[in-house]
Amino acid sequence: MSEKERALAARTVLQQCLRARLQVRPAGERSEAEFVQMDRGTVLYICFFKGATDDILPKMVSTLLNLRLCEADSGKLSSLLELPGSLLIVPQATLGGEAKGRDVQYHTDISKEDGLRLHSAFVSLCEQEVAKAGPTVRHGSYGNRQVLSLDTNGPFTHLMEF
Amino acid sequence: MSEKERALAARTVLQQCLRARLQVRPAGERSEAEFVQMDRGTVLYICFFKGATDDILPKMVSTLLNLRLCEADSGKLSSLLELPGSLLIVPQATLGGEAKGRDVQYHTDISKEDGLRLHSAFVSLCEQEVAKAGPTVRHGSYGNRQVLSLDTNGPFTHLMEF
Repeated sequence: MSEKERALAARTVLQQCLRARLQVRPAGERSEAEFVQMDRGTVLYICFFKGATDDILPKMVSTLLNLRLCEADSGKLSSLLELPGSLLIVPQATLGGEAKGRDVQYHTDISKEDGLRLHSAFVSLCEQEVAKAGPTVRHGSYGNRQVLSLDTNGPFTHLMEF
Repeated sequence: MSEKERALAARTVLQQCLRARLQVRPAGERSEAEFVQMDRGTVLYICFFKGATDDILPKMVSTLLNLRLCEADSGKLSSLLELPGSLLIVPQATLGGEAKGRDVQYHTDISKEDGLRLHSAFVSLCEQEVAKAGPTVRHGSYGNRQVLSLDTNGPFTHLMEF
């Protein structure tokens, strides 16, 4: 693994969608599963690495929300804030995996405790920024299985690392 | 950008799914859109970089099909070949994007001509390998918009670079 990879604080994958639905609470013995959903917008899969700190969050949020990745009705590329589109944040620790032989290891992933803290802070920052533009922010429950359904008009999958 | 990134031949993102449907031909004036679909398996988004050659393909296919990323009914992690699950290959040139200011540039992506050739060869190799195990390989049309719908039980998104 290169030094650059070791120094990564976070890895994100972005996909554009027309509709998305994410389970935020699994069904219990006496309760049905709970979901959040959104229409047009961006699904953001996110994973923090060991050593990541809060310092990185403002730049991440600013970059991710202002990148021109979304297709406006005109066909022109716009940012999520410009569109404006909704945002679904999916914690995805698997994104930090590295192949070792046929297995995948997650040794460079942040601890669950620190990951939860950073994830919550990241969501809050996104909510603050997106609230100004009108659209909504939805997010998965950190540590849970991310049961997700997605309808896209072309996911335009992008990788952004910080 | 680091030297390592420059030397990358391909970037893939993998997601586990329960069902997936991908448009392979858009609707025409007199024809309906055509789709391929699969049930349980892996969606593989793939992008080749400038300088990639056929030499990389056997290793890529072997790695991707044999990595233990899929959840078997037992809960144990299995490879796609072991499961056995189906494979949906989605050409996704956007994966090669790099942020420059608020825009995303694709300067390191392979040319369309070479990309189509490598994509076709990659699909053929996957078909050969997967056919031995039973499940099916589906794939998008290179260069088309990848209209995709996905139902997951947790996408377990992974990044694998070659």
